[in-house]
Amino acid sequence: MSNGRSVRLWAPTARARYGAGYGKTAALRVNGASRAAKAGAIGLLLRSVGTDASRLPHTGAMRYQEGVPRIPAVALSTVDADLLHRKLGKGETVRVRMNLSCKSLPDAESANVVGEIPGREKPDEIVLLGAHLDSWDLGTGAVDDAAGCAHVIEAARLIGARPTKPRRTLRVVLYANEEFGLRGGRQYVIEHANELQKHVAAFESDSGSGRVWGLQWNAGPGAERLFRGLVASLAVTPLEEKKGGDGGADISTLKASGIPLIGLRCDASRYFDVHHTAGDVLEEVKDPELRTGVAATAALAWALADAAEPLARIPEEEREEKARKR
Amino acid sequence: MSNGRSVRLWAPTARARYGAGYGKTAALRVNGASRAAKAGAIGLLLRSVGTDASRLPHTGAMRYQEGVPRIPAVALSTVDADLLHRKLGKGETVRVRMNLSCKSLPDAESANVVGEIPGREKPDEIVLLGAHLDSWDLGTGAVDDAAGCAHVIEAARLIGARPTKPRRTLRVVLYANEEFGLRGGRQYVIEHANELQKHVAAFESDSGSGRVWGLQWNAGPGAERLFRGLVASLAVTPLEEKKGGDGGADISTLKASGIPLIGLRCDASRYFDVHHTAGDVLEEVKDPELRTGVAATAALAWALADAAEPLARIPEEEREEKARKR
Repeated sequence: MSNGRSVRLWAPTARARYGAGYGKTAALRVNGASRAAKAGAIGLLLRSVGTDASRLPHTGAMRYQEGVPRIPAVALSTVDADLLHRKLGKGETVRVRMNLSCKSLPDAESANVVGEIPGREKPDEIVLLGAHLDSWDLGTGAVDDAAGCAHVIEAARLIGARPTKPRRTLRVVLYANEEFGLRGGRQYVIEHANELQKHVAAFESDSGSGRVWGLQWNAGPGAERLFRGLVASLAVTPLEEKKGGDGGADISTLKASGIPLIGLRCDASRYFDVHHTAGDVLEEVKDPELRTGVAATAALAWALADAAEPLARIPEEEREEKARKR
Repeated sequence: MSNGRSVRLWAPTARARYGAGYGKTAALRVNGASRAAKAGAIGLLLRSVGTDASRLPHTGAMRYQEGVPRIPAVALSTVDADLLHRKLGKGETVRVRMNLSCKSLPDAESANVVGEIPGREKPDEIVLLGAHLDSWDLGTGAVDDAAGCAHVIEAARLIGARPTKPRRTLRVVLYANEEFGLRGGRQYVIEHANELQKHVAAFESDSGSGRVWGLQWNAGPGAERLFRGLVASLAVTPLEEKKGGDGGADISTLKASGIPLIGLRCDASRYFDVHHTAGDVLEEVKDPELRTGVAATAALAWALADAAEPLARIPEEEREEKARKR
């Protein structure tokens, strides 16, 4: 019988499609072990911070605080955690055996994958289209973030197949190691330091494979004209635009250079049902939904790369990178 | 992107609600290892015979044939099997490491759980209400068959709470070990041999927790009157009745004695999505759906136990027990 507890953190509303609340709840996973250890715990059982009522646990990065005992920590599926709660609620004695085989291995070399369509007039000016190649380990990462890779690769292919190329260069960057500390994004900034002033915009798709519903952008004065015009012209879906944020985890590393940042927003109502679980597999990706993201990415990429004037850069005083926790 | 393969064995049609086809497809699992070994295989990877597109494998009983090498056998989830098929279809070399920790342990003592509401006029005449207490090991067995136990226990409770009891005795039997060879059902026949002629009917609920849609029954001439009248009088759901079969696995052992057998049929469209997987948990059971099964069970139990005349027994020539494979 359905128990009384709600197993969804968010109803499928506007907040859900945005994936709102994940950063806040993920902090329980990221910091939980050290917080518990400080209180004397010998282990942490975390109720998965995902949104699905299934047997698949939701996992992700966690950190041990210096000077605090490193206790074992596991995420239980919401269903298993609820069963545990019911038993404890009835006063039953519960014995748990934790048997973990996970471990951190030494760093290994990896690489961002970069491809370009040179601009026809200003090839030294760059519009970056980003997504990340790596994924959390339990699934195959179809939603997080193979979907984003598909968006940017297919958008570039569509544009590359046109007889006329856009004025500026389109650079597709498939970032390595987003999940484990934004290492690809940080390295890109180091290796392309001398080009950053020539990056006129950076775009990222890292919100899954659902139907696209909006663009979040951050740029200097006057930029809203481009996004409002784009939204009005696109027929694929009711597209919304909103100023703010840092576009996405990988390209957030470009904020300090003032590069205009744009993030694709896909319907995330189901995103945290499968994100970072064994359920993040190809079967979750629906072709018609994925195509809406491709269409929006291609239209945006063309508009940015072929515009007469580039967007104004993010003003100096707004360039601080928001601390990201994953 | 969704692959071209259908991942559902049955569409949600009349056949699906009946769970049609399971016996046939389960034979692949039951006999697959020995069939493969005869052909020289060193191991068997079986695409789960369940109906869900998930990462949870569907499992169940299997048998090794005498004189054939006992090769390891595993069920892959449909999603994992499809991934393997896609890789093999592209000509990729696939290496699989089989790491099994399952084993058969020696038999241990268990027991059927039996309770009665003595009849007010003919306490020696028995209407049996059955379901099974055990479950396959990956889930908690909420659907298979805690739901059936709930149906018969709650129906008996409702009848027991009435000021007037039915003419005959209602006997609730929660069978032990249905899954591993009908041991509870077979032992019941042995231990109650001297009472079998006094069993006027046996009922079983073992088709899950979904909305009830029918009764399948098997009895002698004239029995259809009771079932047609019952179906016409029940308002809980469009109930159908059909003659045939053996009521259910546990009570099929009573067929040789000619005891009229009745099986509750609940909507099984989703049954094989979770049956014998880690997903067979309490969250799958929807209270309003479960109540339809209780209502039908209670009405049927009363009708059988309070009827002026018992149903005609299954004719001698129709009493052979169908060979059951699980």
